[in-house]
Amino acid sequence: MGGDFAPGAVVQGAVEAVAESRGRVSVILVGRQAVIESELQKHSPAAAEAKIAGTLRVVNADDVIEMHDAPNAALKTKKNSSIAVGLALHRDGKGDAFASAGNTGAVLSASTLMLGRIKGIGRPTIGAPLPTATHSPCLLLDVGANVDCRARHLYEFGLMGSAYVAAMFGTRHPSVGLLSIGEEETKGNEVTLEAFKLLKESSLNFVGNIEGRDILKGGVDVAVCDGFIGNILLKFGESIPSFLKARFVRYASRGPREKLVALLARSALRSVMQEMDYQEAGGVPLLGVNGVSVIGHGGSTPRAIKNMILLAEKTVLQDVNGKIQDSLHRSRHGEE
Amino acid sequence: MGGDFAPGAVVQGAVEAVAESRGRVSVILVGRQAVIESELQKHSPAAAEAKIAGTLRVVNADDVIEMHDAPNAALKTKKNSSIAVGLALHRDGKGDAFASAGNTGAVLSASTLMLGRIKGIGRPTIGAPLPTATHSPCLLLDVGANVDCRARHLYEFGLMGSAYVAAMFGTRHPSVGLLSIGEEETKGNEVTLEAFKLLKESSLNFVGNIEGRDILKGGVDVAVCDGFIGNILLKFGESIPSFLKARFVRYASRGPREKLVALLARSALRSVMQEMDYQEAGGVPLLGVNGVSVIGHGGSTPRAIKNMILLAEKTVLQDVNGKIQDSLHRSRHGEE
Repeated sequence: MGGDFAPGAVVQGAVEAVAESRGRVSVILVGRQAVIESELQKHSPAAAEAKIAGTLRVVNADDVIEMHDAPNAALKTKKNSSIAVGLALHRDGKGDAFASAGNTGAVLSASTLMLGRIKGIGRPTIGAPLPTATHSPCLLLDVGANVDCRARHLYEFGLMGSAYVAAMFGTRHPSVGLLSIGEEETKGNEVTLEAFKLLKESSLNFVGNIEGRDILKGGVDVAVCDGFIGNILLKFGESIPSFLKARFVRYASRGPREKLVALLARSALRSVMQEMDYQEAGGVPLLGVNGVSVIGHGGSTPRAIKNMILLAEKTVLQDVNGKIQDSLHRSRHGEE
Repeated sequence: MGGDFAPGAVVQGAVEAVAESRGRVSVILVGRQAVIESELQKHSPAAAEAKIAGTLRVVNADDVIEMHDAPNAALKTKKNSSIAVGLALHRDGKGDAFASAGNTGAVLSASTLMLGRIKGIGRPTIGAPLPTATHSPCLLLDVGANVDCRARHLYEFGLMGSAYVAAMFGTRHPSVGLLSIGEEETKGNEVTLEAFKLLKESSLNFVGNIEGRDILKGGVDVAVCDGFIGNILLKFGESIPSFLKARFVRYASRGPREKLVALLARSALRSVMQEMDYQEAGGVPLLGVNGVSVIGHGGSTPRAIKNMILLAEKTVLQDVNGKIQDSLHRSRHGEE
């Protein structure tokens, strides 16, 4: 029931995920049963076949947490929300992962409360892979789960980000940078100066402070910051394509020659911008909870939902949480 | 003597500023006299004529603070630096403004120490105009002068930014937004939640919280944040052109058709990116000091230096500091 185009886009994306994975992935659709069943009928015979094969099921949940609801209040009053029911299924082992394009704050709170935290992790975090000038993305975290952070939390983000990148992108010893305002160890704010020390002493491949320009430049696999900065940076980055589009439109209005050039440039720009498109990634992981919880974009289309489900599958298969635990174990040994 | 291409680029830029302004602007070049004189000889007869007319003068300063020097230590040991001597000339009324592409930290510290702060301002700030999808830039501040800020400082940045935009861009009642992670008043970190209240109670045209995406989107004239976030965001933004260039190169390598399209797109992209080029702006103002101090980019070319000098001139002519004082006066009345 989550996302701006729910339940239509969610149901369609789920049907496509099951079809594309040739039944490797099973999806439990959680929400108002009658509404979901009626959406499923639009996708016959694929949806009907998947239901017979058991790769597509519906579990009823009467309440819906709206996108604009205050997360914690909504979780209290709407006990039977699709978010709560879906997470309970995952917690109780009836599903290997949970994914939602719904109210981010509610998914975040409910995931942390219902799944619990991985032992040794103080603050679960949301990480977002940003495109770079090289072939590897840069995982920025935290991008909004934790607004005011202590040094210890930034260190945890580095550890979880490193484990995620290693597991999901196959990067060996991912490089971890601490987002700051200068490369020197002495540059930073109170929290990052302390976090620098923790990261330096850790078993992570810590490359020191990085600057704002080092994200898109590439070469650093994980960029660590608090969720206030990360969220502002992520949304700033997401606004680049619209900004460029507006600029090209203005350029095109200068004359017939410019109009032609802008027209030709558009396809190139669209291709260049493709990786900046959240539809491709499908969602971002919530790391540090005892389970797999993937958070989709509010504006998710069916394609984004499909990719979100496949991302959740990969997170399970690559045992991201096992790798986070291994890393915590190693770092604890290192400290002893 | 400041900047990566000093003194060559600085001297050339100064000669060009004097020429372009037809003698309206006089420049005092501060630094090692022999080196500067020898650079000036390269620009004869323009430079020689300007010297005779008195629009170009040289004042000797033996010490040079290097770009990598620790600012405060360098200011102590290099008493006779071009930064210190130049600022003393401004303080003593022998120049109406000071401009430098040298060590930013040193210019910042020396300006604050030697010129003093405007009464009522706790922390001088550096503001940077960012391009937007509309025709008006968004002044982001602070972009690096103040790493750890209190709510009161963010409020001051809003006030100074508003006065600057009104004076320099002719915007009436500039809109001031507080950079945060959601539009609602309840969203933010500890410092911004408190700053929200101060800005809301002020006489400024405060539009509330804005998000990362609202900067490039346009419509907000002043975006307020602490210098840690602002610096990261500014450098992230500055890296967009190189990122796009790398992406276009990769796109072009796909085949002959793509190569042709990328070639055609390049001129459009360059034109679109022009306003993101710091060479155009020339420099960023240090606001809140008793005087005019403009900080240029380390990589300033002659064109950037010329624009930096003309920016300093405009800051004097538009009486930015008078407008900051007026605004402080109004807000004090408002508080009574």
